[in-house]
Amino acid sequence: MTFDYPARRARVAGLLPAHGVHALLVTSPVNVRYLTGLASSNAAVLVRADGGALLVTDNRYIEAARALDVPSEEAADVAGRLAEPGTGIEAASMSVAAYQRLGEGLVPLGPVVEPLRAVKDEAELDRIRTACEITDQAFTDVCPAIAPGMTERELARLLESRMAELGADKPAFDTIVAAGENGAVPHHAPTSRELRAGDLVTMDFGARYDGYHADMTRTVSLGAPAAWQRELYDLVAAAQRAGRHALVPGATAREVDTAARSVIAEAGHGGHFRHGLGHGVGLEIHEEPFLGPARTGRLEDRVPITVEPGVYLPGRGGVRIEDTLVTREGGPELFTKTTKELLVL
Amino acid sequence: MTFDYPARRARVAGLLPAHGVHALLVTSPVNVRYLTGLASSNAAVLVRADGGALLVTDNRYIEAARALDVPSEEAADVAGRLAEPGTGIEAASMSVAAYQRLGEGLVPLGPVVEPLRAVKDEAELDRIRTACEITDQAFTDVCPAIAPGMTERELARLLESRMAELGADKPAFDTIVAAGENGAVPHHAPTSRELRAGDLVTMDFGARYDGYHADMTRTVSLGAPAAWQRELYDLVAAAQRAGRHALVPGATAREVDTAARSVIAEAGHGGHFRHGLGHGVGLEIHEEPFLGPARTGRLEDRVPITVEPGVYLPGRGGVRIEDTLVTREGGPELFTKTTKELLVL
Repeated sequence: MTFDYPARRARVAGLLPAHGVHALLVTSPVNVRYLTGLASSNAAVLVRADGGALLVTDNRYIEAARALDVPSEEAADVAGRLAEPGTGIEAASMSVAAYQRLGEGLVPLGPVVEPLRAVKDEAELDRIRTACEITDQAFTDVCPAIAPGMTERELARLLESRMAELGADKPAFDTIVAAGENGAVPHHAPTSRELRAGDLVTMDFGARYDGYHADMTRTVSLGAPAAWQRELYDLVAAAQRAGRHALVPGATAREVDTAARSVIAEAGHGGHFRHGLGHGVGLEIHEEPFLGPARTGRLEDRVPITVEPGVYLPGRGGVRIEDTLVTREGGPELFTKTTKELLVL
Repeated sequence: MTFDYPARRARVAGLLPAHGVHALLVTSPVNVRYLTGLASSNAAVLVRADGGALLVTDNRYIEAARALDVPSEEAADVAGRLAEPGTGIEAASMSVAAYQRLGEGLVPLGPVVEPLRAVKDEAELDRIRTACEITDQAFTDVCPAIAPGMTERELARLLESRMAELGADKPAFDTIVAAGENGAVPHHAPTSRELRAGDLVTMDFGARYDGYHADMTRTVSLGAPAAWQRELYDLVAAAQRAGRHALVPGATAREVDTAARSVIAEAGHGGHFRHGLGHGVGLEIHEEPFLGPARTGRLEDRVPITVEPGVYLPGRGGVRIEDTLVTREGGPELFTKTTKELLVL
């Protein structure tokens, strides 16, 4: 399945009159890719309210640009080539330096393309599904090798290289492997700490496939879990289940968060779960919408999103369980299918 | 060897009066890391002209921040916690949206920290040297496996996984492997194209080690090279040698570029070498200084930098040869030591 870039640009064009501009200068690299198909570190596309568009990139990418279904030009200063008074700019991605250099009359706008990107078409969901399949398979393939003596870094490397062998572009983000007490740090970077019998080991990782991201976390037990470890695991699993079940089109971001968070709070661990419940995934690993106590907005249909509660006990360890799913009218479709039973390795 | 973060902050503090500000709000993640040691996706540090500093990050990173030799606080809105009228901001990294949100009186400044970062101390050079050793060793180890039938993607994956095994944090950037006609595209992304006898194969890759980057390119020949391939290789090798020899403290960015470029131009291939000659490396893979026909400034001592001329013949193929070196008063120190003889595999 391929992407309909002209249709995406037409949707942007249709939004511009409401923003009071005749054209939008798109400079966010991921938004440029979304609207044209060009993956580049230096490109901009001007989308006009009348539906016209012009893509500008430098000599490194111009050949790739010319193969696309949008008019293109080569310039070193890609935004400078397209900026003119009355043009909307993406205030969240353009730097102050670029804004000052490009001169008067540009109109800083909030997110225009991002809300469109939140709802995926089936061609995009295909990519995310594949990214999640690679992620699941890598976990299955690596599991037999997880044993005491292996370091966090070695385990992270195994997961990443297996995903590459299975066809991933690259890891979707820096893999987290946190063993024992390190599991109490939600964003722990893998170290040379060796896995030991009695550890809970949290792995947060995913594949990127054709530009689209997967995100999954599983916590496993090395040897039979202690009572507190089993209890913590069951609590997080219950919270994660509640979050998944709340994931329906029309639900608010806060409602979904609360569904999971309240399970943890009622068990007295509210203070040990201090991050949001989840985030959209797509061309970025973290994108709209975000699920959290202070988040606003309602979920729409066909929004891929993570559900990832965790409980972190300083000095002792933690558990996090995360899936990538997509909202559907009939209930969410689960993309990451690895078991959520506590695996004892 | 460790880093002297207080000394780095003191150097920044000393520059502030000349910029007309009493404090600088540092929001570029890599500059925050340079000045405090905190590697984070959401942190800011305020450096005052009187030498004081305050680091702010969110709950994911606050434990790591508290272990550093700088006062720290937790906040979700890291820049908002520190912004006040009269504070300088980094115009190249702060977004227009953040600037508008943080209110009146902030003073957009050009690069303050980046020029300091260009000149490395020996602790930093140690990291870059190690990153380059890993890069060299991965090339040596992977070479015997390079053969017809292997795809560009497979070769890229081999290089990346070998670097990881050798202790790299991660690849310094997306590995380029370009075989045959794909070698004519300087930034070619690896595909499923199989290597064939008669191909020139260009590999542009490097390791990241403890946050510091290596960058190396070698072009090899699969089977005995044709006369035009050998000729192209010898030309690029001569240009690269001339560029390396021009790399002395005091030389201008343009002089070094010209030293290499003129060799290629005199052979009639000036139009087939359309990118800059090189770039600084450090906490970023591409950082100041840049070598190119339109670049300004002079090289200082202890500046790690690449020299990477290439000639690209559309539809036929290309050659690029790149080293990472560091400027020294007595002549550059070569970090990437892989042979630059044409390897015939």
